[in-house]
Amino acid sequence: MVGGGQGAFIGAVHRMAARLDESFELVAGALSSTPERSRASGAALGLERVYGTWEEMLAGESALPPERRIHAVSIVTPNHMHHPVALAFVRAGFAVVCDKPMTVTTLQARELEAAVAASGVVFAVTYNYTGYPLVKEARRLVADGVLGDLRKVVLEYHQGWLATRLEADGNKQAAWRADPAAAGLGGAVADIGSHAENLAATVTGLRVTELCGDLTPLVPGRQLDDDCNLLLRFEGGVKGVLVASQVAVGAENDLRITVSGSRGTLRWRQEEPNRLELALLEAPLQVYTRAGGPYLGSAAVAAARIPSGHPEGFIEAFANVYRNAARDIRLRAGEALLEGEPAPDYPGVSAGARGVAFVEAAVRSQALGSVWTEVG
Amino acid sequence: MVGGGQGAFIGAVHRMAARLDESFELVAGALSSTPERSRASGAALGLERVYGTWEEMLAGESALPPERRIHAVSIVTPNHMHHPVALAFVRAGFAVVCDKPMTVTTLQARELEAAVAASGVVFAVTYNYTGYPLVKEARRLVADGVLGDLRKVVLEYHQGWLATRLEADGNKQAAWRADPAAAGLGGAVADIGSHAENLAATVTGLRVTELCGDLTPLVPGRQLDDDCNLLLRFEGGVKGVLVASQVAVGAENDLRITVSGSRGTLRWRQEEPNRLELALLEAPLQVYTRAGGPYLGSAAVAAARIPSGHPEGFIEAFANVYRNAARDIRLRAGEALLEGEPAPDYPGVSAGARGVAFVEAAVRSQALGSVWTEVG
Amino acid sequence: MVGGGQGAFIGAVHRMAARLDESFELVAGALSSTPERSRASGAALGLERVYGTWEEMLAGESALPPERRIHAVSIVTPNHMHHPVALAFVRAGFAVVCDKPMTVTTLQARELEAAVAASGVVFAVTYNYTGYPLVKEARRLVADGVLGDLRKVVLEYHQGWLATRLEADGNKQAAWRADPAAAGLGGAVADIGSHAENLAATVTGLRVTELCGDLTPLVPGRQLDDDCNLLLRFEGGVKGVLVASQVAVGAENDLRITVSGSRGTLRWRQEEPNRLELALLEAPLQVYTRAGGPYLGSAAVAAARIPSGHPEGFIEAFANVYRNAARDIRLRAGEALLEGEPAPDYPGVSAGARGVAFVEAAVRSQALGSVWTEVG
Amino acid sequence: MVGGGQGAFIGAVHRMAARLDESFELVAGALSSTPERSRASGAALGLERVYGTWEEMLAGESALPPERRIHAVSIVTPNHMHHPVALAFVRAGFAVVCDKPMTVTTLQARELEAAVAASGVVFAVTYNYTGYPLVKEARRLVADGVLGDLRKVVLEYHQGWLATRLEADGNKQAAWRADPAAAGLGGAVADIGSHAENLAATVTGLRVTELCGDLTPLVPGRQLDDDCNLLLRFEGGVKGVLVASQVAVGAENDLRITVSGSRGTLRWRQEEPNRLELALLEAPLQVYTRAGGPYLGSAAVAAARIPSGHPEGFIEAFANVYRNAARDIRLRAGEALLEGEPAPDYPGVSAGARGVAFVEAAVRSQALGSVWTEVG
Repeated sequence: MVGGGQGAFIGAVHRMAARLDESFELVAGALSSTPERSRASGAALGLERVYGTWEEMLAGESALPPERRIHAVSIVTPNHMHHPVALAFVRAGFAVVCDKPMTVTTLQARELEAAVAASGVVFAVTYNYTGYPLVKEARRLVADGVLGDLRKVVLEYHQGWLATRLEADGNKQAAWRADPAAAGLGGAVADIGSHAENLAATVTGLRVTELCGDLTPLVPGRQLDDDCNLLLRFEGGVKGVLVASQVAVGAENDLRITVSGSRGTLRWRQEEPNRLELALLEAPLQVYTRAGGPYLGSAAVAAARIPSGHPEGFIEAFANVYRNAARDIRLRAGEALLEGEPAPDYPGVSAGARGVAFVEAAVRSQALGSVWTEVG
Repeated sequence: MVGGGQGAFIGAVHRMAARLDESFELVAGALSSTPERSRASGAALGLERVYGTWEEMLAGESALPPERRIHAVSIVTPNHMHHPVALAFVRAGFAVVCDKPMTVTTLQARELEAAVAASGVVFAVTYNYTGYPLVKEARRLVADGVLGDLRKVVLEYHQGWLATRLEADGNKQAAWRADPAAAGLGGAVADIGSHAENLAATVTGLRVTELCGDLTPLVPGRQLDDDCNLLLRFEGGVKGVLVASQVAVGAENDLRITVSGSRGTLRWRQEEPNRLELALLEAPLQVYTRAGGPYLGSAAVAAARIPSGHPEGFIEAFANVYRNAARDIRLRAGEALLEGEPAPDYPGVSAGARGVAFVEAAVRSQALGSVWTEVG
Repeated sequence: MVGGGQGAFIGAVHRMAARLDESFELVAGALSSTPERSRASGAALGLERVYGTWEEMLAGESALPPERRIHAVSIVTPNHMHHPVALAFVRAGFAVVCDKPMTVTTLQARELEAAVAASGVVFAVTYNYTGYPLVKEARRLVADGVLGDLRKVVLEYHQGWLATRLEADGNKQAAWRADPAAAGLGGAVADIGSHAENLAATVTGLRVTELCGDLTPLVPGRQLDDDCNLLLRFEGGVKGVLVASQVAVGAENDLRITVSGSRGTLRWRQEEPNRLELALLEAPLQVYTRAGGPYLGSAAVAAARIPSGHPEGFIEAFANVYRNAARDIRLRAGEALLEGEPAPDYPGVSAGARGVAFVEAAVRSQALGSVWTEVG
Repeated sequence: MVGGGQGAFIGAVHRMAARLDESFELVAGALSSTPERSRASGAALGLERVYGTWEEMLAGESALPPERRIHAVSIVTPNHMHHPVALAFVRAGFAVVCDKPMTVTTLQARELEAAVAASGVVFAVTYNYTGYPLVKEARRLVADGVLGDLRKVVLEYHQGWLATRLEADGNKQAAWRADPAAAGLGGAVADIGSHAENLAATVTGLRVTELCGDLTPLVPGRQLDDDCNLLLRFEGGVKGVLVASQVAVGAENDLRITVSGSRGTLRWRQEEPNRLELALLEAPLQVYTRAGGPYLGSAAVAAARIPSGHPEGFIEAFANVYRNAARDIRLRAGEALLEGEPAPDYPGVSAGARGVAFVEAAVRSQALGSVWTEVG
């Protein structure tokens, strides 16, 4: 693991997610931006091999015989470090699990995409929300044509934790997110908007081709947008909207998607992840549950661990990314799929690149006066 | 009543709303666009005075001695008829209750506004959703500064009844709404978007100054937009969005508003009108109910008829417009407010004009290529 | 109307309910227990014929020629007055709309039942909750066998308004309900438990044959039960429970029913009356809405006034009792059902008597030490 | 681990729960009732030490030097095996994590309680629902007197998975639960009713002193109750009800608790575990969330891993039992509590015994004709 030392939030989540299904065992890490803190964090976690920097870690692991090396590296640093670390590990032939947004610029994303193609390693981006079983079910319903011709996608992502100027109060999570040098030029649009974009792309299979964004830092003194609203146009004439904020007091992590087509509408909400609503023409609303019955597709079933009614949550969805990446590593190492086993199912480097292009287009739209902008 | 004959929907709602609190008794009408159907509809309702056309009605009522005339006329025709009928009755000194959008063009709205000012009559626009007690409470909470400085307004209005091309199947409601000659140039944006604008203006007291709209007829063969998404800018730097559709299969009449400020967020949803959510910084979410307790403001209390937990709905909210207009007619006729009685509280001609300007700006934004457009 | 004068709650509800659909026009009344207050209340309402007492009203109306008499009397007094007033009016040949519980004792109920049978008048009991369209739909689903063989009925009725000793603070509604001389020997079990019993009987068509009750006045100083929990056995081996309270702080009017059978389960909740949940074996949960589509039965459709998504509430459900009773009066007077019109549908004197027997059995169970007791 | 081999459900849950926080590493097991299947299951899980029977495991582990032995044994067999296995391991000085109901009879429970007292080992019962952070918060609110004097407890537990006769179709989970020899004499009352009892005791601190139960096998051909409804009396005159079923079609794992007192009411539902409703007299309803703010007590905060809005579920709650038991083992081994660290918090042998007594009283009540019965 690179990043995720003491004081970090997402590092611990990655560790629980990797452990839940015994997908990976954490053995080595360079956990902080300074060697001292890296070592302290590594010791606190009882790692076998603690490194001072990610460069040392890359060198150290590369020097080990293949059977003793790490099988994959998790990159959980602030955004600006994703690219150099990921690129280096990919080029050295290590599988990578990288946090989102994958890189800060499209140029970096393309470089990384090319490197992954060249090296053939497994590369997963932790768009963790698409790890939920019912998001996989939503994807299936759309793919099976249950909604008819798609018409509209409404994305919402409401948070409130940045409603005050936390970054000025020493909050480490807020501080790097509010700093363009660490976060890139997108604030909320990168931190949460990119999740929404991935959710839409996963469920509908469609790319955003054009957008018009209104990005604003609503909290006085903040540099990057903490609120963003975008009109979206998808491939095939599908219309859309993204409404996102990190200053909606009281909202916690309220990511939602609604997809409408000529025959039906789907609704899913991250804070109630174990239910999926399906409305069809002239029929009562139907509520799918996570493990609710024979009507569910195999991808949703495979992504659930316990019976419906026993809530699975954020960590379990996150763990699905790890579990699928781990499975893919074994398959590429020569194992075969079991009878009836679905193919590994996780967001890869292309999904990561698409997200970066989305954020970049939104930032450009805003910079040019909130105008319609193509997504590269 | 003008309009609202057999086959109409909203006429019957107006009649129930007028009757519920004995605000008005229906005695005269020109209920349809042809004299024969007007007379048949009037006879079916047992009206005292049935007219063949609204012009006959105006002439007939004007000819009666004042104490025998109608006290007010309800205009519940398709949109294009609101202006001529309202203008004529206002100029003749009759109070008017007019459906929304008040007129088809801003020019008409201004003319009507001037006529109302000149004649001094009571003029109510049935933006019925702002008649709900908890919308009045939301307005109070904002006005009292409970949310702090306002930052963002999210408006949603999801319907699905036009997901198929009903207007081609003889559905009377759909037919005139899909016809620019009767509905004006706005489809969904006028039919439901105008309600959302009024809701925002009522709750926040703010006008939309600028907007950028993406209006689309998503159902093949339809002329007017059945889906509209708008980026909004309100006075004072407040940002906003309106997401509306009439083709979201399964959605019924799902109007929602969320208002965020520096200290709190309000959420209200028309389909669950008896609850209002209030989130304040560092406090548990609070749920206000319609008649729930001593914390409620007087306007909400005055607008409720029965104890909380006994649901009041659409007709009751609609009736509040009638009740307040009726009260205002009596006050203007010389009655005095009772001890502790709140002043009459209903959307007037200015609110109507503001709605028309909003629709017109949205249509213009779309016509010019979905660009930012000032609201006149 | 008998009862329902100034200070009363339910009288005003009855009046709105009678008026909403123009079922009845209120023309005469003896509205309070003293002639002075009766006259003051009647004058305030602008009644044509104001009487000092119900006896005077009965005499006065009987003395009028039939075509000028009232068509029906609404009895909205405290419980102990229902029986004498209803009996006298029934015997005089007037139709009656009577509040619940219909009488205080089973003996009275039987006498009234016999009188109604003898006179042939329309007699409606305002078990208003069964007037909701989706309760009628629930009844249809059970009757059509959609749930399979019934197994269990769970009834809940949570209120909190009596959590403090309001009756000692001059609250008129609380005072008579807490007084055995006016309310009878059942407190919560009569006031709200009887509604729950009627809801179960309406939806399932089953009678409670045996019960074991734990009835308690939980607020110190109160005489009658304000909390009651009952184990129920219905005809045919169906098991059940009633959990009711008037001291559950924060609960408003939270009446719920769940019916399970071998193939499915129905759930309905009064505070969200416009949705009905239907769970069938191995299928996603379905949510029916009030006017939601072609799947609804004719009784539900007939009981709704406006499209789904436009909430109908308590007053509308109440009005359905009046509307159906009014229709039945006309039918018995010789009008014929229209093509496709459903037969009038309202709780009658037998439903009223069944409710009284239920309350009486619950009180007896408690008195004998909370033992199993047959329902007479 | 004893039990939990291939085909079992709860064994895998225990393993994930133990692993999530690295509370325990699974190293040894006797996973099935036959040595062959035990060995196959152990091999599949890659255990270090696989035993054919629990007796072999006890002997084997006891023979190891203390520092190489297991630190605790998880007992996840059908109910009838809990007692002999737990007793033997406790007497041998091993810490135990035991599934519920702890034993089949009160006699066994007392014997186990005495053994635990004698040996001084850590003994945890996986009443996992009380591991949820907001259940701990509910307990705190009651203990702090926020609800005033307690008056009533409503417990509900609705499941539907046994609505058909699964035990006749080869379903392993259903088969042993339907078999008195393996499950004991309580069906639903033991399998889910015992969870509800523990939830009530945890939140309120009160014991059930007396109950009257109506227990029924509603599915034809079933021996043990699959539906149970109980009137409850708690210490101090608090009234209660338990409504539970395993045949409510469509219900998944719908455990609920409502506690009312003189000043407020609490409501919590397992399927939405991240919210807790608190209603206080004359105030709006408040909704607490899992990690929602400074108003939360320390026990709830300590039991949450990630920010509110990121749902934690069943596995996380389960893991809290393991985490606390593991912590207690270390404390008893001589570690000290950290500054500000709350004491370990998990259901112990007394809670387990109380649950057994509850089930036994319910079964006795039924056997004697559904009469009031003291809880031993």
